[in-house]
Amino acid sequence: MVVLGSTGSIGVNTLDIAKTNDIAVEALSCKKNYKLLNEQIEKFKPKFVHIGDKSLKSFVKHDRVFTDDSGILDMLDECKSELVVNALVGFAGLAPSLKIQKINKTLALANKESLVVGGKFLDCKAIRAIDSEHFGLNFLLSGQKTPVKSLVITASGGAFYKTPLKELKTATPAMALKHPNWDMGAKITIDSATMTNKLFEILEAFWLYGIKEIDAVVEQTSMIHALVNFIDGSTTAHICNTDMRLAIAHAVLGDVKKEILPSVDLLSLAKIEFKKIDLEKFPIFSLKDKVLKNPNLGVIINASNEIGVEAFLAGKCGFLDISKVVFKSLEKFENLELKEPDELFYYDNLVREFAKNELKLNLKDRNVI
Amino acid sequence: MVVLGSTGSIGVNTLDIAKTNDIAVEALSCKKNYKLLNEQIEKFKPKFVHIGDKSLKSFVKHDRVFTDDSGILDMLDECKSELVVNALVGFAGLAPSLKIQKINKTLALANKESLVVGGKFLDCKAIRAIDSEHFGLNFLLSGQKTPVKSLVITASGGAFYKTPLKELKTATPAMALKHPNWDMGAKITIDSATMTNKLFEILEAFWLYGIKEIDAVVEQTSMIHALVNFIDGSTTAHICNTDMRLAIAHAVLGDVKKEILPSVDLLSLAKIEFKKIDLEKFPIFSLKDKVLKNPNLGVIINASNEIGVEAFLAGKCGFLDISKVVFKSLEKFENLELKEPDELFYYDNLVREFAKNELKLNLKDRNVI
Repeated sequence: MVVLGSTGSIGVNTLDIAKTNDIAVEALSCKKNYKLLNEQIEKFKPKFVHIGDKSLKSFVKHDRVFTDDSGILDMLDECKSELVVNALVGFAGLAPSLKIQKINKTLALANKESLVVGGKFLDCKAIRAIDSEHFGLNFLLSGQKTPVKSLVITASGGAFYKTPLKELKTATPAMALKHPNWDMGAKITIDSATMTNKLFEILEAFWLYGIKEIDAVVEQTSMIHALVNFIDGSTTAHICNTDMRLAIAHAVLGDVKKEILPSVDLLSLAKIEFKKIDLEKFPIFSLKDKVLKNPNLGVIINASNEIGVEAFLAGKCGFLDISKVVFKSLEKFENLELKEPDELFYYDNLVREFAKNELKLNLKDRNVI
Repeated sequence: MVVLGSTGSIGVNTLDIAKTNDIAVEALSCKKNYKLLNEQIEKFKPKFVHIGDKSLKSFVKHDRVFTDDSGILDMLDECKSELVVNALVGFAGLAPSLKIQKINKTLALANKESLVVGGKFLDCKAIRAIDSEHFGLNFLLSGQKTPVKSLVITASGGAFYKTPLKELKTATPAMALKHPNWDMGAKITIDSATMTNKLFEILEAFWLYGIKEIDAVVEQTSMIHALVNFIDGSTTAHICNTDMRLAIAHAVLGDVKKEILPSVDLLSLAKIEFKKIDLEKFPIFSLKDKVLKNPNLGVIINASNEIGVEAFLAGKCGFLDISKVVFKSLEKFENLELKEPDELFYYDNLVREFAKNELKLNLKDRNVI
């Protein structure tokens, strides 16, 4: 298989699953972590590798190194593998996702921005989602004959669930990066702290399952990942330990017939309680109904959020400014129409420029994320 | 369809489902509640009816009334319905269950004693179980491709979950009949208070699913009914409101494509916590491994428990004597072998006589239950 984003949290876990299951790795791709990439090259002997940052090419110990955004697409053309895991971060994952399906490969998708922005132009039914919530939904929906009434995904609450609203204004990146239950990359951890991640997962669920009856609730232990309400009055829940290897194993192996994680010990679980998401503290989640009504808005929310998160991580704006710039961008662009995938790239760029201007930024260095 | 035990809690709910879904009711059977039976006759116009207590036959307003235990079997022979709901109470349900399958009808089974005692002689795969726990397991297992590791059913804890051990000795029937979450008949409510009901459900699950990895945990809200641990590390849970009509609807209708109950409101649920069953307070549950190892013991446990429950309800023994007589009966008969269904009736009788003697009883009146 091919692993895009191999040095990130999902990428590393994916390679762990590949090793354990003797799956050959044909190609690897990362943004700039050439040290870990070199270790992975040593271990997996891929035919091709890609590094986003061209200036680091000479540090990569391989004779077939692709670079830049376009290099990923060229590399994919050379690959013979059936399966590509896309664990890239942010909008940068979209073009590879479109490409992977265009050349008839199976897309195992951890890059949620692909669906948030481009769900309209992807064959969503064919996607294998790598995300604890959507994997949980898949598991619960698998083989069920009773019709579905609604889907529910859970939120841990993120780094600021217990932080009072008035303290969020002065929250620092270090504070926002402390996720209570999951060890993930910086972008998604900030997105968890703002609940943008949950808004994105709602939109992903819409594209994956074609249903608009989706909600999210806070479940602080992060042991219950997803629930399905069926028409009859049954509700089912998916419970597992917080370890992405389970979702990855299902995406990579298809049917899983062996232990990937130990089962949860019901008797040692903390008390489970479901709570409403506080829309005053997490205003971005109040966009849920609007986004489900008009999924085209995903590109605006994602682009402005990426700029906001970059700026926040670089110490150039406050925590609450992230959602503010998203709301301002939505106001500006909400009438957009999307007919071609190319328009996604056009609007992404337009929104980024607008958002930067709103935040009075001159962010040349996009490597903060 | 045919409804045996039509005046009990399950029977009444089954007729409610029949009414709502325009299902014709061919025959009804009850033990002695002729008043309610007459109302049901008026409403459902069955072709045949049965009343267990022969002395009440003249009060039944119908021209085809069967009586006695054997009368049920004769009535079943006359019925043309495909489906029979067996909601009889206790050992009395066994002979009808064997008969229903013998004459190739579909058995929708609420009478758990049929499986506890006679699982060995029933076609368990063909049974539609009417029980919130087994319905929950069915729902969770339906269509799943991932192999199962173990099954878990939940216990509310019964009437005495919070009662200190030392107070159980003097517990009265009125106290034991107060179930915290379910409104059920007397026999099953006492069985819940002793945890015999949970031991029975473990044995039922063994017969229904052919797996010995089964456990029960206390979940006091009674909103989670069953969980399945899968080999991969996934656990799923079945959640619904405490209303037997959901399990009945699935057993009666097969596929359910409409709302039977409102979905649970996750946000208004009490905190969910799983706890171990206290074997000091509920000694009968310590028989779990022994019974799973030798399911033949079901007939002994059931017969002695029925005598114990009758005696307790009649004020002729204490609450803790119920489990004591079960343990004594097991000691006496545990080497039994079962080769023919007839032996079930032989041993049932033998154990009852022994248990009565142990409790120094002369229980002629079996109508206490």
